[in-house]
Amino acid sequence: MSPDERWFPSHLREMDQAECLDLLAEHQVGRVAYCDDRGPVVFPVNYVVDQDTILIQISPHSNLAGRLRGAPASFELDEFDAYTETGWSVLVRGRASYVEHGDLPPDENRPHAWAEGQRTLHVRITPDDISGRRLLPA
Amino acid sequence: MSPDERWFPSHLREMDQAECLDLLAEHQVGRVAYCDDRGPVVFPVNYVVDQDTILIQISPHSNLAGRLRGAPASFELDEFDAYTETGWSVLVRGRASYVEHGDLPPDENRPHAWAEGQRTLHVRITPDDISGRRLLPA
Repeated sequence: MSPDERWFPSHLREMDQAECLDLLAEHQVGRVAYCDDRGPVVFPVNYVVDQDTILIQISPHSNLAGRLRGAPASFELDEFDAYTETGWSVLVRGRASYVEHGDLPPDENRPHAWAEGQRTLHVRITPDDISGRRLLPA
Repeated sequence: MSPDERWFPSHLREMDQAECLDLLAEHQVGRVAYCDDRGPVVFPVNYVVDQDTILIQISPHSNLAGRLRGAPASFELDEFDAYTETGWSVLVRGRASYVEHGDLPPDENRPHAWAEGQRTLHVRITPDDISGRRLLPA
């Protein structure tokens, strides 16, 4: 099915927060975003959902670490299918803060980083709001 | 292969601009990001690469449209595989501007929006820099 063979575009439907949290809980990689002097920056990261917040694990010496200390941050997750031209996306807007060791979940519930590097700093994105949309078949 | 069975994390390798542009040219959906008063916002969009810029098509009445008129903006693209814990990502940082009708490529080279809605406004993200990384098998 090529774009030219489609007569009807896909429909957009808003998701409620519970549906967004379910999708967040089922995945392992999303995108963290912050703003610097030149504008927005977006990077993929491994994450887990911990107490309805997004928990990520990064290098304490990274640019990311410098930008995520008590600052506005967002987290985006999505999935699309080019054949059916459908999918969904979730956006968590909130604030990032460093996590003290005592506030971390048990080892088995912490994020597992795929990439090499000393990722000893845990950062939590606490949502101000969570929104999402599904792109459904026409 | 579960995370516990992996002894070695995946390696990170920087990509050059040509490799990033090749990946951008091969895909149809990425994520546009901008900053508002509350921080970063990230949304999936259909896009095409046109003259080494990112061209998207949005509703002139959307929040996105209001934020992408001569403003800093980024575009992110990635692909990951949870089984091998590998993948890649590209980040385009630049500036968004509205495109006049006369500056658009021919119809067949314009972005094709999967979602319903009147997307009559074309926006171009002109890169200041393009960077990317691959996460390779250990």
